[in-house]
Amino acid sequence: MAKVRVGVAGYGTIGQRLADGVAMQDDMELVGIADLAPTLSIRALRENDMIGANGVRYDLYLVDGADREAFSALDIPVAGSFEDLCRSVDIMLDSSPGGVGAKNKVLYEKYGVRAIFQGGEKNDVADVFFHGYANYEKGLGQRFLKLTSCNTTGLIRSVDALDRAFGIEKVAITIVRRVADPGDYHRGLTNALQLDKAPSHQAVDLMTIMPHINATGILVHTPVTHGHIITVLATAKDGKKLAKEQVLEVFRSHPRIRTVTIDEGFRGNASLFKYARDLGNRRGDMYEIALWEDSIVESGNDIMYAINIPQESVTIPETIDAVRAALTMQRTREEGTAATNRNLKIGRWKR
Amino acid sequence: MAKVRVGVAGYGTIGQRLADGVAMQDDMELVGIADLAPTLSIRALRENDMIGANGVRYDLYLVDGADREAFSALDIPVAGSFEDLCRSVDIMLDSSPGGVGAKNKVLYEKYGVRAIFQGGEKNDVADVFFHGYANYEKGLGQRFLKLTSCNTTGLIRSVDALDRAFGIEKVAITIVRRVADPGDYHRGLTNALQLDKAPSHQAVDLMTIMPHINATGILVHTPVTHGHIITVLATAKDGKKLAKEQVLEVFRSHPRIRTVTIDEGFRGNASLFKYARDLGNRRGDMYEIALWEDSIVESGNDIMYAINIPQESVTIPETIDAVRAALTMQRTREEGTAATNRNLKIGRWKR
Amino acid sequence: MAKVRVGVAGYGTIGQRLADGVAMQDDMELVGIADLAPTLSIRALRENDMIGANGVRYDLYLVDGADREAFSALDIPVAGSFEDLCRSVDIMLDSSPGGVGAKNKVLYEKYGVRAIFQGGEKNDVADVFFHGYANYEKGLGQRFLKLTSCNTTGLIRSVDALDRAFGIEKVAITIVRRVADPGDYHRGLTNALQLDKAPSHQAVDLMTIMPHINATGILVHTPVTHGHIITVLATAKDGKKLAKEQVLEVFRSHPRIRTVTIDEGFRGNASLFKYARDLGNRRGDMYEIALWEDSIVESGNDIMYAINIPQESVTIPETIDAVRAALTMQRTREEGTAATNRNLKIGRWKR
Amino acid sequence: MAKVRVGVAGYGTIGQRLADGVAMQDDMELVGIADLAPTLSIRALRENDMIGANGVRYDLYLVDGADREAFSALDIPVAGSFEDLCRSVDIMLDSSPGGVGAKNKVLYEKYGVRAIFQGGEKNDVADVFFHGYANYEKGLGQRFLKLTSCNTTGLIRSVDALDRAFGIEKVAITIVRRVADPGDYHRGLTNALQLDKAPSHQAVDLMTIMPHINATGILVHTPVTHGHIITVLATAKDGKKLAKEQVLEVFRSHPRIRTVTIDEGFRGNASLFKYARDLGNRRGDMYEIALWEDSIVESGNDIMYAINIPQESVTIPETIDAVRAALTMQRTREEGTAATNRNLKIGRWKR
Repeated sequence: MAKVRVGVAGYGTIGQRLADGVAMQDDMELVGIADLAPTLSIRALRENDMIGANGVRYDLYLVDGADREAFSALDIPVAGSFEDLCRSVDIMLDSSPGGVGAKNKVLYEKYGVRAIFQGGEKNDVADVFFHGYANYEKGLGQRFLKLTSCNTTGLIRSVDALDRAFGIEKVAITIVRRVADPGDYHRGLTNALQLDKAPSHQAVDLMTIMPHINATGILVHTPVTHGHIITVLATAKDGKKLAKEQVLEVFRSHPRIRTVTIDEGFRGNASLFKYARDLGNRRGDMYEIALWEDSIVESGNDIMYAINIPQESVTIPETIDAVRAALTMQRTREEGTAATNRNLKIGRWKR
Repeated sequence: MAKVRVGVAGYGTIGQRLADGVAMQDDMELVGIADLAPTLSIRALRENDMIGANGVRYDLYLVDGADREAFSALDIPVAGSFEDLCRSVDIMLDSSPGGVGAKNKVLYEKYGVRAIFQGGEKNDVADVFFHGYANYEKGLGQRFLKLTSCNTTGLIRSVDALDRAFGIEKVAITIVRRVADPGDYHRGLTNALQLDKAPSHQAVDLMTIMPHINATGILVHTPVTHGHIITVLATAKDGKKLAKEQVLEVFRSHPRIRTVTIDEGFRGNASLFKYARDLGNRRGDMYEIALWEDSIVESGNDIMYAINIPQESVTIPETIDAVRAALTMQRTREEGTAATNRNLKIGRWKR
Repeated sequence: MAKVRVGVAGYGTIGQRLADGVAMQDDMELVGIADLAPTLSIRALRENDMIGANGVRYDLYLVDGADREAFSALDIPVAGSFEDLCRSVDIMLDSSPGGVGAKNKVLYEKYGVRAIFQGGEKNDVADVFFHGYANYEKGLGQRFLKLTSCNTTGLIRSVDALDRAFGIEKVAITIVRRVADPGDYHRGLTNALQLDKAPSHQAVDLMTIMPHINATGILVHTPVTHGHIITVLATAKDGKKLAKEQVLEVFRSHPRIRTVTIDEGFRGNASLFKYARDLGNRRGDMYEIALWEDSIVESGNDIMYAINIPQESVTIPETIDAVRAALTMQRTREEGTAATNRNLKIGRWKR
Repeated sequence: MAKVRVGVAGYGTIGQRLADGVAMQDDMELVGIADLAPTLSIRALRENDMIGANGVRYDLYLVDGADREAFSALDIPVAGSFEDLCRSVDIMLDSSPGGVGAKNKVLYEKYGVRAIFQGGEKNDVADVFFHGYANYEKGLGQRFLKLTSCNTTGLIRSVDALDRAFGIEKVAITIVRRVADPGDYHRGLTNALQLDKAPSHQAVDLMTIMPHINATGILVHTPVTHGHIITVLATAKDGKKLAKEQVLEVFRSHPRIRTVTIDEGFRGNASLFKYARDLGNRRGDMYEIALWEDSIVESGNDIMYAINIPQESVTIPETIDAVRAALTMQRTREEGTAATNRNLKIGRWKR
């Protein structure tokens, strides 16, 4: 079977990882990446002779306004324009800065290219707001999909798992948010916690994807760069009790949830970052959310637990799922996510 | 009326503030403070010619094992031994390092001195685990009281307020904990969030003080030095709805809860720390917890909100309340806390 | 003698402290402060019934563009317009945001008011770039003076002291810069050190004030909010040796340099911040720079040492000096700085 | 030619990277690694089926006191005891916790195994204090070598380069030290800079390796986890001028020094950490120190510059050099370091 042809617009923190994710799929071809300026990430690619994950060459296309001379001076090969890339792909993964995706959409429509937008774009850019596990079937054959943001993606993984097992009626979350990515100098926070007005957008977004659930929450920014930590209080339908052991079993069996304990050494988000580096994962990334087994407590009939969201990489699997749905490569949630997981080697670690 | 005679054992972060708090009461006399070594805090007192808050002289007594020569070399006047201090007071506020208070208790018993222990001691050191608003009357005439820790003290203020107004059955909390005090070098955390095993001890402690409430929670350490932030999800008895406007009204009328908004400029714990400095408060302290009005959200019938705990100073008012209860200076919660508030100028800011 | 009449334009981090500094001078009258919006600092002043340092009332004047309704709604009394304030003062301490001072200067010229600008303005706004210890006499009778920035002010204190004692030819500095003030949310840095292009502007500024010295240096931003730390390598003229003991003696005798040691407990900038709070200093401020005695090392004939710069408050004494110079209140550096020191209680702590 | 047989004692932050470094050498065989407990790093290795860098299997040997049951329960294969490993290698890279290496030495002597110790051991554990570029020949045929610590290793690279080109007489350094590694929970610092007593040990260590140079310096701890930044002021012999352009040329031609600029996007240590991740380097590591071209400034005849030390990985190349020297695999500094560089792909990026 011919591989589907995929492009990546924007080679930033997410775009690099999307390109890597595509390069690892046995049924997708990474046609190229597009960007504007010779950023450090582009320079790193050049230092590697344009070879990315899995030994795949990442051809570079330049978006409008790019300074070709600058690339030439740095001896960075350019394969063509962004429109050239649009002409050559079946689907574009758009990880441009917020708002740019909406502009790019004009080109996607012109060239009949499907697109997956990231969380930074407004919801109305897309036909469907997508999550690989929660609403895969809604994405089937759609032209424009938008992924949930990093926190929402990870949060929904866990809530969807409980919902399918027990039926969930209500969740209340507290997001302890990392404020910058490693390497960021354009944003930061120093010795301060910062509050957003409640409810947090992640709770609102969850309700868009899972409209049968009542969700709310509070978000606190913290001055760290590794994964977010979210506490979730979930209430089952009809006053049903959520028992710790049953809940734990559900989480343990989910391929994209890594259950960990403090006693093993997973003391917080920094342990998980270190562990992914020690695994030798490319860029020190992790696709799974972590869920602390020793954080799970019962609150009356409700259940409370804490998860870790590796913000740089967590949305990659669900974005690959979106490609599968949009191009109807697999017709069901089970088949789509399984294909993604197999290619990204997710779940390999399961005990 | 003769003033009651009060001593402070341990002139650290809490002890200094207890001494200041006592010095501000018109019906208490600070007989002296006791410590072991010429710490920076003792040196600062010396630089001020031993004059503390409110123009009161803080006489220094030395505990067993102190190196008198060291004090002498620094020209720091010493008024006597810790036993001398014990002999001269009606009650001791014990803010020694954790565990030392239990040893000191032998002396307190020997000299018939009452004592208030801080959160670092084990519960069994005391006859009653005390909170000025939640169980003042239980402290009446008791010999040994133990204060709740900083987070629990602030948390209970808000939960007790709701409980008295509406009747609370259950709370689930997430504590976003500061990891060190300003000036600390003996502990710290760098670019990491850290999880404790659930349930957090603060939830457990709340149940000790308020046994009719089911409480649980998760605690996350963060690398900041200013106040803790706690999110609380509270459930009323009998399925009663907790409406935002009613809850807000309760919080606004509590003298030790300062309701604030993000729009005013209170963006997080650092804004509150700065505000207390700008007020010219001694040491830049604040006795009130802050409660963000724009954090309050309804979750079905439950209510969720976020509070800020100024860890260095929040327990001072409730400790002063404890003195009032232990010595039966006031017989009711209303009278006891009102006397403390008046002397500490708490509530002055109310709109 | 009639007190000189002083206004403060801009009630931010520096402006508040300038107002406090003026309020403490026995020969100055704080006529009022001017600002634009009901910031947290203004709200704190209102909570104190407009009473600032030393029991002095701080009358508030509004600059052009201020929303009077907003102040009125908050029941904040307004004494008049910024032009009203200009008409009533001999000299204005301008601590407006960078660039605004240059605009205000038009008014100062119109009303014949002298002004002292802070480090954020461009040098050409002023007739003289001023430092109380290094070039007091240059400020005598001048209309417009500009203060050195916080780092440069503290740095020059130490270099000027050495220069007067031994004759200095060259300095090379490394500035370990705090990136935000306590309470800042508009800037920050998270888990990152950041480099500026060399040479640092502080070295260049030093040469403007002390043109006979060759200065250069490198600046590294660090994610902390308390004082900057600067290491200085100083070379004497004519190959003369700078011996540790002699250098130490010079530093110990300077009123605005507080010599400290690690063994006393001064382990870094956070210890100093804590110490100032423990002293009960208003806002937890310190006017002195700290100099670590155990950081002083000889490098051949050169001397190397480390100082701490309390960025929020360090320029206050030199700004008060500038008032004295501009209004010729004292004619010499010795008299001018001594008057400032006496009123600010600087040097009281000297052993 | 038979490969030399190498073991690694201690599979922590440094030990893992030493094992990887050995696994990449075409003339070395990694016989195994030794450790005590199933740490996260061992668990990560297990998750990878004991396969490390370059597809090499890392056999695990257990040191005395290890709990074999614990490994067995986790299904972690064990190849033998530490003594078994000692019997099978020509040389051991000892990256045990500080002090343990000295105890292990007894075994090395018993089995006639050579060893390279890391910076945490005392100097007298070894026959020679070693640096691949500065004193390779001193290590030839030695039995016990000790590597310089991370900061000293990187610092000496730059000073040795200048010394060989121009002759250096004196250096004065300021170390802006990261306080923890990513993933560390056992140490940290929060919103504080911390000073060590001067002179810093790195300056003293430099003099041990390069006794003809007078070195001193001051060290400031900062709350970050990525690379240290050191500023160096170097003075040439005989009053010779060190001109920026000449110095830059020397640095640019050194394989283990990566010259970077702020304009390219290398704004600080976090940019470099990110860049190494973007390169896809294993664990996100970098072997080169970075040197900012735009930090280089002349101070009279002296030169000042800033370098970045990637603390986790910087000592790996010099340790591999030490193996080459101790086993006389190459007889000269040029040949030894060139072999290491080729195998670690160092210098590939040079323009």
